[in-house]
Amino acid sequence: MKKVENAIQDHYPDDYAWCYGCGRLNKSGFHFRTGWDGEKTVTVYQPDEVHMAIPGFVYGGVVASLIDCHGTGSASIYLHRKNGYEIGDGTEPPRFVTGSLKIDFKKPTPQHVKLTAVGRGEEIHPKKWKIVTEVYAEETLVATGVVIAVVAPSSFTTK
Amino acid sequence: MKKVENAIQDHYPDDYAWCYGCGRLNKSGFHFRTGWDGEKTVTVYQPDEVHMAIPGFVYGGVVASLIDCHGTGSASIYLHRKNGYEIGDGTEPPRFVTGSLKIDFKKPTPQHVKLTAVGRGEEIHPKKWKIVTEVYAEETLVATGVVIAVVAPSSFTTK
Repeated sequence: MKKVENAIQDHYPDDYAWCYGCGRLNKSGFHFRTGWDGEKTVTVYQPDEVHMAIPGFVYGGVVASLIDCHGTGSASIYLHRKNGYEIGDGTEPPRFVTGSLKIDFKKPTPQHVKLTAVGRGEEIHPKKWKIVTEVYAEETLVATGVVIAVVAPSSFTTK
Repeated sequence: MKKVENAIQDHYPDDYAWCYGCGRLNKSGFHFRTGWDGEKTVTVYQPDEVHMAIPGFVYGGVVASLIDCHGTGSASIYLHRKNGYEIGDGTEPPRFVTGSLKIDFKKPTPQHVKLTAVGRGEEIHPKKWKIVTEVYAEETLVATGVVIAVVAPSSFTTK
């Protein structure tokens, strides 16, 4: 997939659209966008030149950020569908926070190519989803990740 | 600790000083700096205003990045000392890459305060160190992390 056409982040309420990883209103951020690809979820992102570990290779913290927001975005998509809704149908999607994040770096991630995070979600509790993600640089698997995403507490935005 | 005076990243060779997380030569990066604090290692960082999850709280990907570079920097410090050297003694420190990264987010991380990553390192193989880290926002534990850091292969800079 070259581009995610219909992303859940496009439909987060404004209060939740400031994330440095995936917020459409954050001018400085990565703007990760996550949608369906068949029964899986996908986020496509090409890091900037400055996002390097050393020249030629992508910084692991950017890969971690991609997996993080892909995880919370995927959880939102899965729960939204479970609730009977779809991305962009006019209903407000649920918003998740990250409970835990585990990443295994398989190979150095080359710069100057698109990264594709592909995920599968599984409900492990009514308010908790596990998203297992693989990140590819073109066809090469460079990292795998597991995110435990938790429905954001209502207090999160009222503090 | 308010500021790390003597950081290992100040002494990485130039080829390894471009990291978006901790490279002194990367003008756009976080500039994480890691040094000793007694027998532990410490990295102090105050996220920028844009590094938010939602207004008022720090983006988890920035906390993950802090734990990542704190891990590789700490591994470098520990191995350097094991080899008989200290930060800034004129010898080139060893450079690590991240093999895996595991983070548990304990509490939402408030913005506008300094974050302090405190770590302990343990050699688990001659080329592999485990760094267990706690991240505090002022006095509050907000995240814990485990990094498996691996000595960077010589091929890493010659590609």
